[in-house]
Amino acid sequence: MLKTITSEEIDCLALGAWILGTGGGGNPEPGRLIMQNLYKEGTRVQLIDPDTIRDDASIATVASQGAPLVSQERFKDPKVIARSVELLARHLEIQFSCLMALEVGGSNAFYPLMAAAELGLPVVDADWMGRAYPELQMAGMCLSDIPPFPLVSVDPRGFETVITNATDWKRLEDISRKICSAYGSTASICLPPATGKQMKNNAVPRTLSFAIEIGATVKLANSRKESPIEALLALTGGTLLFQGKVTDVERRPSEGFLRGSLTITGSSDFTHQNLQIEFQNEWLLARSDEAPVAMSPDLICLLDEVTGEAIGTEAARYGQRVCVVVMPPPDIFCTTAGLALVGPRAFGFPLDYSSAFST
Amino acid sequence: MLKTITSEEIDCLALGAWILGTGGGGNPEPGRLIMQNLYKEGTRVQLIDPDTIRDDASIATVASQGAPLVSQERFKDPKVIARSVELLARHLEIQFSCLMALEVGGSNAFYPLMAAAELGLPVVDADWMGRAYPELQMAGMCLSDIPPFPLVSVDPRGFETVITNATDWKRLEDISRKICSAYGSTASICLPPATGKQMKNNAVPRTLSFAIEIGATVKLANSRKESPIEALLALTGGTLLFQGKVTDVERRPSEGFLRGSLTITGSSDFTHQNLQIEFQNEWLLARSDEAPVAMSPDLICLLDEVTGEAIGTEAARYGQRVCVVVMPPPDIFCTTAGLALVGPRAFGFPLDYSSAFST
Repeated sequence: MLKTITSEEIDCLALGAWILGTGGGGNPEPGRLIMQNLYKEGTRVQLIDPDTIRDDASIATVASQGAPLVSQERFKDPKVIARSVELLARHLEIQFSCLMALEVGGSNAFYPLMAAAELGLPVVDADWMGRAYPELQMAGMCLSDIPPFPLVSVDPRGFETVITNATDWKRLEDISRKICSAYGSTASICLPPATGKQMKNNAVPRTLSFAIEIGATVKLANSRKESPIEALLALTGGTLLFQGKVTDVERRPSEGFLRGSLTITGSSDFTHQNLQIEFQNEWLLARSDEAPVAMSPDLICLLDEVTGEAIGTEAARYGQRVCVVVMPPPDIFCTTAGLALVGPRAFGFPLDYSSAFST
Repeated sequence: MLKTITSEEIDCLALGAWILGTGGGGNPEPGRLIMQNLYKEGTRVQLIDPDTIRDDASIATVASQGAPLVSQERFKDPKVIARSVELLARHLEIQFSCLMALEVGGSNAFYPLMAAAELGLPVVDADWMGRAYPELQMAGMCLSDIPPFPLVSVDPRGFETVITNATDWKRLEDISRKICSAYGSTASICLPPATGKQMKNNAVPRTLSFAIEIGATVKLANSRKESPIEALLALTGGTLLFQGKVTDVERRPSEGFLRGSLTITGSSDFTHQNLQIEFQNEWLLARSDEAPVAMSPDLICLLDEVTGEAIGTEAARYGQRVCVVVMPPPDIFCTTAGLALVGPRAFGFPLDYSSAFST
């Protein structure tokens, strides 16, 4: 089933994707601007329901890789993203029938849309993560039988590299990350191709339409002077973990990631408490009085308490009035294999996963 | 003209290539051992004179890339080197008719021989540098009209990456170096293909047979209890720059290179003098009482004063009795374009090139 994405939905997608980014994935604003400009020129992009994709269809997954702040300085060119897809198609001697996002969270939600604008292919309403994560192997799709190669990495100056063989997804991540750093810390990548069947078994379904719905819900509540946070909780089945004022942020760039810790001092129902959130690009672990209260793969979202808009790990600062909302994780991450990829231990926290939703 | 390399010539090549390595390029001993083992099993490798190569022949250039000390821990497998050639041939849909070395200096002299043992192709008696240099763009061949791509990088675990487009040789070096570092700081690379014509115009000719001749000359002098240093000077047109005892070595790994400075206190005709040699993998600039007396692209060779064998920048140490021999550089490096690649300024020394041989 094909559905044309409207100009209003593009705005909603930016808002919702930033919330699903859980602090990371980069601000979707540049992607939104690029798509709105293309829409003004008459371009339209279509979303296709994952269930209607043929099992033997070839799907190209595109993403921006690198430091989010560099990506915001070097706007992405849809032609460059399309080039990564064309190069992979030529290398494999196949034709892709649709495009997919690596991560719906943050700026990468717009990546398949920009490629679609150039290539005229529809975008599958699904992604590899259902949120954002810092490394490409942290994805439900990496638990499928897709071989961890080939991967194409390109940049606007004409650089093109194809990783034609790698032993596992983590190594593919490592090699592609180094190539990206040689390009100047930002690259457009086209990931190993997925079949329709692999996508249906391992992708997180309907995440783009979910992000659009989240954005629409927050916007509607704001326009009605209602609480966007309450509307978001009602839509997503999320829970309000904390409310208060940001009183400390400690950030350290480390191994190509933005790591650190955020402290919020409670207000409203949370007076006399503090919440601490550890992050590595994304918000990963929340503690109250040293006790863990939410952790990956649960989605920990830091939102402006008035507008309900997301605040990224790079933008959080002293004095912001915030709500911390936790949303249930994609099912595929709650398996043993999924938790090995994205559970607290995958990020160096010596904890077993305990969901804010399982009790 | 094809000539079979003998087992004795393999030993001579190791000795001569290490001298032409001017301190860098890695110790050829592991390559020598691998080739002697293959020779014991009956393998023979053929050397082909560059003038007899057809203009339209396709030549594959192979090399080991990475930290020399890692390469000595992880011995190279001829099958892996051959895989880099096969992968490039498949990518380009061409057949290579012969193999060539990137650098005759150091361990890389053996790289095309190892590939040849596996692939049954002859090795061109020529290389890109006529010595060793730390980066792949520091080569006469990079002044030809060869496009700076594609380059294949492989490793024994099965990793394969193809850089299918780069804007210049320095960028190709940068990207391939990062891939190498993701592999664990050692990789087998197959460089962009050269035609016979490009090789004849820009390679340094007959460098493998020159290295063999150097090794044979040093061995013969030693067996006759004559001075190997004097024999070497007579053969190469080199000059004895200095003789003395190593009294200080300062080494610092920096940006993936081994940088530093060596001090020699004079003996024999050089009493009451000191010589200082700056290095970046290779010996690059010699100064006596602050005044430059030899510099790249002149070949500055640190040799054991008794045996005439080369001493690498990683192996020089206090107390060694040494001779410093300077040999004339390949003509192609003495052009304006050549000096831009490998003159003193290319290594950060604010000096115009002045040859030890031009006065």
